[in-house]
Amino acid sequence: MVEREIKALAFDVFGTVVDWRSSIIREGEALGRTRGLAVDWARLADDWRALYQPAMERVRSGEIGWCKLDDLHRINLDRLLERHGLEALREAEIEHLNRVWHRLDPWPDAVAGLRRLKSRYLLATLSNGNVALLVNMAKRAGLPWDAVLGAEPARAYKPAPEAYLRTVDFLGLRPEQCLMVAAHNADLLAAARCGLRTAFVRRAREHGPGQTSDLEPETGFDFVADDFLTLADQLGC
Amino acid sequence: MVEREIKALAFDVFGTVVDWRSSIIREGEALGRTRGLAVDWARLADDWRALYQPAMERVRSGEIGWCKLDDLHRINLDRLLERHGLEALREAEIEHLNRVWHRLDPWPDAVAGLRRLKSRYLLATLSNGNVALLVNMAKRAGLPWDAVLGAEPARAYKPAPEAYLRTVDFLGLRPEQCLMVAAHNADLLAAARCGLRTAFVRRAREHGPGQTSDLEPETGFDFVADDFLTLADQLGC
Repeated sequence: MVEREIKALAFDVFGTVVDWRSSIIREGEALGRTRGLAVDWARLADDWRALYQPAMERVRSGEIGWCKLDDLHRINLDRLLERHGLEALREAEIEHLNRVWHRLDPWPDAVAGLRRLKSRYLLATLSNGNVALLVNMAKRAGLPWDAVLGAEPARAYKPAPEAYLRTVDFLGLRPEQCLMVAAHNADLLAAARCGLRTAFVRRAREHGPGQTSDLEPETGFDFVADDFLTLADQLGC
Repeated sequence: MVEREIKALAFDVFGTVVDWRSSIIREGEALGRTRGLAVDWARLADDWRALYQPAMERVRSGEIGWCKLDDLHRINLDRLLERHGLEALREAEIEHLNRVWHRLDPWPDAVAGLRRLKSRYLLATLSNGNVALLVNMAKRAGLPWDAVLGAEPARAYKPAPEAYLRTVDFLGLRPEQCLMVAAHNADLLAAARCGLRTAFVRRAREHGPGQTSDLEPETGFDFVADDFLTLADQLGC
């Protein structure tokens, strides 16, 4: 049985554990009311997220040196301010908005599911978020990680193999002892190529009501679940 | 007030949070009974620990490349087996003994003190232990870290400045926002040189009943406490 070998669960975070899009819209709308701004926050969230992979690709390709996700987020946000009617924001407000990624809300099942999974497995992040972002998010949302790992300690952005393999090495485990949990096919496929076990969790509203990608697993992952509570059932927690 | 600026507490672990010497003696004596070995486990613990700094110095000096503490512990243990009458141990037993550092017990005040401190501050390890060692120790002992950091993610052993400064950088903080908590003057002096705040916690039995070092703070640290509960009082937790 696969689950007997598994010692640690390694989680993608944005979209898998937390609902980044709704969180940005919620906080943006509050800021908009305070500052009298007419902004389409859903579009801002989508445009900001659309710049995420290209920014990391500049690091992965070696075009630029190592750069924390907080800094990539800020470079991307600066590109969007004018287009979205945010020119009036002061520097401190822009910086606070940039750190909305530290204040994302978990999906409703996430905290309860993680608590159950933690009773039997070591829980680590394996996210492209930087450590401070993930630690602040966890502290605010009550995410009970045993270890906050991922791109920054590994100095490699997913889906580069080093992101997975260095995280496994930090945990002192073999790849097959780690279960990658993600809502994204590409992340799980990259993890599987490194020898990790895989769990696909459906997050069909990550990109809002019109989501078209990652609605279903595209291959035979070890586990497929609708949320973390179901995953906990499947893993005997 | 210094404590208003502080956002994170960074903990030395061996000797400060956990009682490595008693834990090794306890587990060693159980092993000795099972295997009928006549070993002076206190002497083994002291000799093993005495090889700790010289082994890390080989990494710090560049004589050898990066090496996890688990591996340095094993190299050091192998040097001691014959001298201490442990030649009869099988490979799996030696490897299990080497990982006794993953199973160290906390000082009696540690878990309760950390829980109080966690209510107000971010708690991170800043230890020379590798991540797997610290995560396994925390899981077994109930140490409620927000982040497991230190030498391995920083790729530098204390007291090298990079160990402190890279940990502060992972946390997204400035050095003066971090309070280094340790039972060792040298560790705190090195942290202070990097700009961190300092808290000396007395652990007068770390080296057993005849301890002669680190009985008192050797300079004016920001906080001096007899245990983590007193430190929590001083920090308003």
